[in-house]
This record gives sequence, structure tokens and C-alpha cells, in this order.
Amino acid sequence: MSKEIGITAKRSDNFSDWYVQVVIKAGLADYSAVKGFIILRPYGYAIWERIQKYVNYHLKKTGHENAYFPVLIPESLLSKEAEHFAGFVPEVFWVTHAGNNKLGDRLATRPTSETIAYASFGKWIRSWRDLPLLLNFWNSVLRAEIKATRPFIRTSEFLWQEGHTVHATKEETDAEVMMIAKMYRKLMEEVLAIPVQVGYKSDKEKFVGAVYTITLEGMMPDGKALQMGTSHNLGQNFSKPFEIKFLGKDSQEHFAWQASWGISWRLIGATVMAHGDDKGLVLPPRIAPIQCVIVTIFYKEADRDRILSKAKEVFAVLSAKKIRAFIDDREQYTPGWKFNEWEMKGVPLRIEIGPRDVEKGQITVVRRDTSEKFAVKIDSAASEIKKILVQIQNNLHGRALKLSESKTKTAKSYGELKSYVEVDAGFVKSPWCGRRECEAQVKEETGADIRLIPLEEEKLSAKCLVCGQDAKHTAYFARAY
Amino acid sequence: MSKEIGITAKRSDNFSDWYVQVVIKAGLADYSAVKGFIILRPYGYAIWERIQKYVNYHLKKTGHENAYFPVLIPESLLSKEAEHFAGFVPEVFWVTHAGNNKLGDRLATRPTSETIAYASFGKWIRSWRDLPLLLNFWNSVLRAEIKATRPFIRTSEFLWQEGHTVHATKEETDAEVMMIAKMYRKLMEEVLAIPVQVGYKSDKEKFVGAVYTITLEGMMPDGKALQMGTSHNLGQNFSKPFEIKFLGKDSQEHFAWQASWGISWRLIGATVMAHGDDKGLVLPPRIAPIQCVIVTIFYKEADRDRILSKAKEVFAVLSAKKIRAFIDDREQYTPGWKFNEWEMKGVPLRIEIGPRDVEKGQITVVRRDTSEKFAVKIDSAASEIKKILVQIQNNLHGRALKLSESKTKTAKSYGELKSYVEVDAGFVKSPWCGRRECEAQVKEETGADIRLIPLEEEKLSAKCLVCGQDAKHTAYFARAY
Repeated sequence: MSKEIGITAKRSDNFSDWYVQVVIKAGLADYSAVKGFIILRPYGYAIWERIQKYVNYHLKKTGHENAYFPVLIPESLLSKEAEHFAGFVPEVFWVTHAGNNKLGDRLATRPTSETIAYASFGKWIRSWRDLPLLLNFWNSVLRAEIKATRPFIRTSEFLWQEGHTVHATKEETDAEVMMIAKMYRKLMEEVLAIPVQVGYKSDKEKFVGAVYTITLEGMMPDGKALQMGTSHNLGQNFSKPFEIKFLGKDSQEHFAWQASWGISWRLIGATVMAHGDDKGLVLPPRIAPIQCVIVTIFYKEADRDRILSKAKEVFAVLSAKKIRAFIDDREQYTPGWKFNEWEMKGVPLRIEIGPRDVEKGQITVVRRDTSEKFAVKIDSAASEIKKILVQIQNNLHGRALKLSESKTKTAKSYGELKSYVEVDAGFVKSPWCGRRECEAQVKEETGADIRLIPLEEEKLSAKCLVCGQDAKHTAYFARAY
Repeated sequence: MSKEIGITAKRSDNFSDWYVQVVIKAGLADYSAVKGFIILRPYGYAIWERIQKYVNYHLKKTGHENAYFPVLIPESLLSKEAEHFAGFVPEVFWVTHAGNNKLGDRLATRPTSETIAYASFGKWIRSWRDLPLLLNFWNSVLRAEIKATRPFIRTSEFLWQEGHTVHATKEETDAEVMMIAKMYRKLMEEVLAIPVQVGYKSDKEKFVGAVYTITLEGMMPDGKALQMGTSHNLGQNFSKPFEIKFLGKDSQEHFAWQASWGISWRLIGATVMAHGDDKGLVLPPRIAPIQCVIVTIFYKEADRDRILSKAKEVFAVLSAKKIRAFIDDREQYTPGWKFNEWEMKGVPLRIEIGPRDVEKGQITVVRRDTSEKFAVKIDSAASEIKKILVQIQNNLHGRALKLSESKTKTAKSYGELKSYVEVDAGFVKSPWCGRRECEAQVKEETGADIRLIPLEEEKLSAKCLVCGQDAKHTAYFARAY
């Protein structure tokens, strides 16, 4: 593989350039003909399909169902909840014409589906018998980005899932919001191997229209936080304007309680950032579309068939154990070229089969995460490789956890808060009075937001680091994507 | 269930009203706040997911990969292939603003993705090593409908899959187009139990920009044809304007050959029309999200637990054999109400478990398609029910085939052609000279199009029924959705 095909930026030198190169060159995504919009290429789509599979499995187990709502939303509907509308309107794409005809009411390409969905919920829900309503939509949403875009992390259109649920009580809604946050956390930590901090958003940062927002935040190697998922309790903020009412068991009419929650293809970007290295992508085995690539190596034409048939044998053994394997027997590339390509694409394990391996009844296995190379007997290949894949998964999580811990500090003064944010970056835990003024001052002076207030608060000190008033919370400050 | 909740239109009296009622009342879809746009509700979405699963399985087996392209396409790109643009422009929704900013180049919400995809294909493809490129996109497309809309059959936005493949030769492209048509046919006939006619579109009816189009057409009970899927050979019509060129093994540069193909949620509408009856939907078991609904029946509170535990036992036995079962143990509805609801929703088999059934070690089984009712021993329930589900699948296909055959006639004169179309409807096979004038005359005088020219032509007569010139083809004329 020539230098231009491989990754030319170093992760430690230019994280941003490195990231984009990995995304493009590993074949996850590409730029499109429209500024700010990307193409999800097959390799990236396969990762997205694995995320979908995990989420669908857990949603269906907990009684949620998938549905699809229109991509176009009339302006009159979008503007029904005032705060929500004000939050989204600067980034809405507007459809004004159909063919040559000017439309009466402008149509927004959905920035999120609360308003169009809740217009129907109001129609569908009549009695407590219709509750809870537990829906989820897989779709794309459009939000015109004025800031610089970055594949997966900030794009004007993105694939995501948005869950929308309706409940009879506040307590049920709280429980839903928390259950979803826990499911997201398992996906992020156990499947993507990315440790996350879970907590509440401040009032300033919560979803427009929500009573409160639970957020899941990852810490990236460059010291910036990344919001990886959110789960909102909407209270009755939407059920009132949209008249989502139900006749209770008490024969009284009540406004319903609602939640909404989502994750997006941003998780693919998070995975690239969290685990990648100078050779390219490093995929955790649980999310990798291909877990083991089998590369055949022979120097004499006479060896070809013998080695390929051994590769097929190994492939069959691995597939039977549900290990996702792939044989790269392309003739137009050398083994060395293939090694580099599959390393760039982050396949967790490479299996080499050459004449000597066949003679010895073994395969040569190379770990992507540590570059360790060792021989494995063909007889025990499936069970050995299953074990190694678990080790890789755990190693990646452990590495990311160490990094995240090394980038989490506790500030004892405003000076420390500022210097940690500016010099070291990462999460800076700081006592905070709960007032917007102090939050805004930190943002202005350091560029850091409050990323979250942990679910279970650790009381660090009695006084807000900014103003010296009594502290109400321990806030995690960080600069963020 | 009250009369208003059930289907109030008779299929034979008012097919159109009956169809819409079934779609809405069975919970497949609902109207939305935007004219011409529908909501795919969970029950309909579950059918769509089964179609996706079938298609994904077959596409992946044949080397195709999923990807996602942006929903917005710049006007300059959409207009690059002139005929294609002219065909779509009357129904394009145009985005003209992002937030408060007017855009320079208008953006079309995708009516189909040829242009935006092929702009990238031109970049990605360099050499024969990059071919074939076999991609598929699951997305929604938007085409502003001026005609009357009908859920699933004609809507301004619809869910579909669009396949886009690039090949080195015309022959490979022909083979791809045909392979996909065969796969679609299996889906329609074997899974949806709808017989289809497969053939070429006339030049007038083919996809704008294609060299030829293969179509799959079903015959609905009201005598109208329904286009259920298409597979196009695009030749080099797009590769030339989009400069999709490759360096061949001969070291020469060649323009590539291309195919595109798609099916949409229209297949859900076809299934409703083809099999439904006056009680509502009738789903073929292979596509039914729920194949057996288990309804518990008890008159004394004391029987409840005993019967419910028997229902769970049956559920477990069926699930172990991969039969999709569901226990309806809702307390707020009577068994009779539930029977009507599940019949309306078209569940192929109902299983009733009452006190007498438990005593006798049996379950009572009722077929949705024939209303037959019989007892099945619990010990053999899974294997018996598997058999019955196959019988239902075959019976539905057989019924639809009989209907389709009864609605296919051969015209020996232009008078016969006209009267068949006007009085009996259905397919009318007629010799045709191949000239657009005759095609247009039939359309004007009867409202019937040429739906297809069969793959293997039956020569019926030597002369065109319209003009008397030598016949080139046997055309299937019909009125259509």
C-alpha cells in the first residue's frame, strides 16, 4: 500500500486531520456533492446495522415498536411548542415548492419528530388502555450546520433513532428515561468499549422543550467531551399544546407524560476516535463487521489450492461459532498490501495461512490492538479465537477507561478549573452554585460547558468555584465537540 | 367490537373504500398532518421489516452491500442526465432556505438517488478491480403527487430500497437485472403469495434514463394491474454524463454499465388488496408479524391462572419451532372482541384455550383464510400448526393465482380488447406492432396502458389489433394503479 493510500497524519500531532483521514480512507464515509452532508459507505453502514441490531433487540424486549413518520413537517405544526420551535428554527431546511407550485404552508425537513408524531399521538390516545405508547423511529434528520462540519460528529443530515413514549404518570416516565439511558450505556461501554459519564444536563444545555435531559458523555483522546446519547423527560410540555389526553382509571381526563431519546451515527465517529491509532481504525470485536480476516500466502502457484482450501476450512469452523470471518483471496494484491489495508480498516484479528502453517496444522494470528503475533493450532482455532476476541474487547475498553480517568480532574479553585480546561483538557469536576451566570462565565473564559451533573452527586466542597456562593452540584466541565 | 371499529365497506361493493378502511383500521398506516404523506404504524412497519429481512438476506448472499446517500440533491446534479431530470422535475420538492438564508443552488429532496450516487461512483471507480460495485440503499423518496393519493399505493413520500450496480460489460448488467427480477418474483410469489407477470416495459413506460426496464405486475381483485417492482438496465446512459470510467484489463479506458432496481412499501398495499376480505386483512403466514394469536377464555376467576399457564406453555412450544406467536391476555376486552380485532388484523391462525380445551389436552385452532375450526392435541401442536401455516400460505397463493388467471384474457380483435378492458378489466393480451401511436390510441380510448411485454413471447397473431400492421410483440394491456 502506498503512503498516500495509508493514513499520513499522526494522531498525536493533528487529531482532527487524523480522524478525517481514518473515516475516509477506512471506507466508513465519504464527502458528498452537498456541503455538510456525507455518504455512509458500506463498511460504515455495516457498523450502523450492528448498532441497530443491538438497539432493536433491547427495545423490542422492553415492548417498544418501530414506526415511520413523514420527513416533511408543516411550519404551523413545528411551531406549536414555542421553545422547541425557537431552538430548532435557525437550522431548519425549508421546502417551499413542489414542482413549479409554491406551497402555502412551508414544510420543514424534520430536525426531529416530536411535533409531527405528537399530532398523531393526540389522535390515537383516548384512554389508559392505550398507554404506555412505546415507539421508535429509525430515520435521518436534517439540521443545517453553520459551524464547521466533521463526518459523523457534526453533519447537516444524520442517521439516528428517536424514541417517543407516552405514559400515564411522571414516575413511569422517569423510569423509562432511566431505563433507556442504561441501555445506551451498555451499548457504549460493552459493545463500543467506550466508557461514558452519565448525568443530567444543566437547564441551559437540556433539550429544548424537556423538563430534564440525561446525557451520556465520552472523553475523547484529544481531551474533548463527546455527547453520545440523550434521554429526555418531556413532562407535560408537549402533551398540553398537542392535547395528548387520556381517560384515567379514575374516569377523569389527564394530560399524558412523555419521554424522547436518541443516539446517532455519531457513535461511529466516537468509536474511531476512542480506539484508532496511527495505522487507522481499531474496531472492538463486538461491533466489527469483520472480526477476523483470513489472508492466504503462497509463493508458488502449486500451493494456491491447498492453502485456499485450508482457509475455507478455517472460515467454516469460525463461522460455525458465529465468528464473523472473511477470506481475502484477491489475486491483484500482495499479502503485505492486504495487511496494511485490513489494519487501516481496524479488523480486530488477522489470520495468516501460508505453506508452513499448513504443514504444521496451525494458523498465524495477529492482534490489531497490540500487534502481538502467535500461532494457534487449527484444531482449537475457534475456541482460541473466541477467547482472543474477548481479550481485545476488554483491552480496548481498559485502554479507553484509563485515558478517560487520566483526563478527569477535580478542581479546588477557579484558577485550577481554568488551567485544567486550558492546558490539560478533559473533564474538570467542580462545585457549582447552579446559577446560569457562573456557567456562562466559565464558558466565556475557557470555552468549557457543563457536560453533566452526575446522577449520584459527590459533594466536593461547599462553595461554587466561580462565585463562592453555596454549591448545589458537582458539575463536569469540559470543552466538547 | 362495535361496527364502527370494524370494516364497514364491502370489498365487492366499494373496493377503494374497503382498502383504505383495512389499511387504517388494521393499524398498518394512518394519514399524517401533511396531505399525501402517511405514517407507517408499528404493525405495518413489522411487515416492512420482514420484507427488508428477506431482501437483505438475498442481496448479501449475492455480494450486495447497504449504504446511505444524502436526502438533498443539488439541482445542478439532478439535471445532469437530461431525460431523467425532465421525468422527475414536475414532482420534486425543492428546499430553497436553510434557516433564514436563501440557498444559491436549490436542493431537491431525493426523488431517486441515481444522480447523487453516480457522482460518487465516478470518483470511486478507477479500474476493473473496483467492479462490480453492488450497492443498495434503504431510504425514503419524495415525489409530489398531483393525482389522488392512496396509502402505500400512491403517496408523496414512500419507503423503498433502491439498488445501484456498476459492471464492466453489458452482459453482466443484463444478468444482474434479471437476477434481481427473479429475486423480487420469489419474494412476491413465495412470501407475499401474490402471482406476478414479469416482462419488459414498452419504451413509453420504461424508467426515464433506462435502456430497458423489467417490471413485475400483479393483478388486483378489482381488475387493475399494480406495478410491484422494477429492474432497469441503464446501459451507459448515466456513466457517460457522470464519467464513470474504468481502466480495463486491456489497459483501455471504458465507460461502465449500470443497473438500478427497486421495490417499495407498495408491496404492503398489494398484500392487503390481494388477500383481504370483508372482515379485514388476511396475511400470508410468511409475512405475518404474528402468525398465531393465542386467546385465553375463562368464565370463572378460578380458571384464569390455569389457562394462562397453558397458553404460555403453548407459546413456548411454538416459539421453539420459530412460529411467531402472541398471547392476548388483555383483561379489558372480551374474547369475542379480540377475535374480531385479530381477524381484522389478518393474523393467519387463532388459537383458543378455554377450560374444556385444558381438560382435553387440546387447543382450538381457527384459520383466518377459511374460518375452519378444529381441535389440535397440545402434544403435536407445533408440528400441526407448522403444517397448517404452510396450507394457508399455499391456499392464499392458489386463490390469488385463480383470480389473476380469471382476469387474464386474450383479445382477437380491437373490439374485444376494448370491451375486455372496459367491462371485465384485467390483463388483455394483444398482438401489437410496437408503435407508440397504437399504444397511445388504446390508452386514450380505454384508459389501459401496456403493462408489460412478457419475457418469453407467445406469438398470438401476425397483426397488430389496433392498426393491422405486422405484430412485433404480445402486449399485456390493463388499467392500472
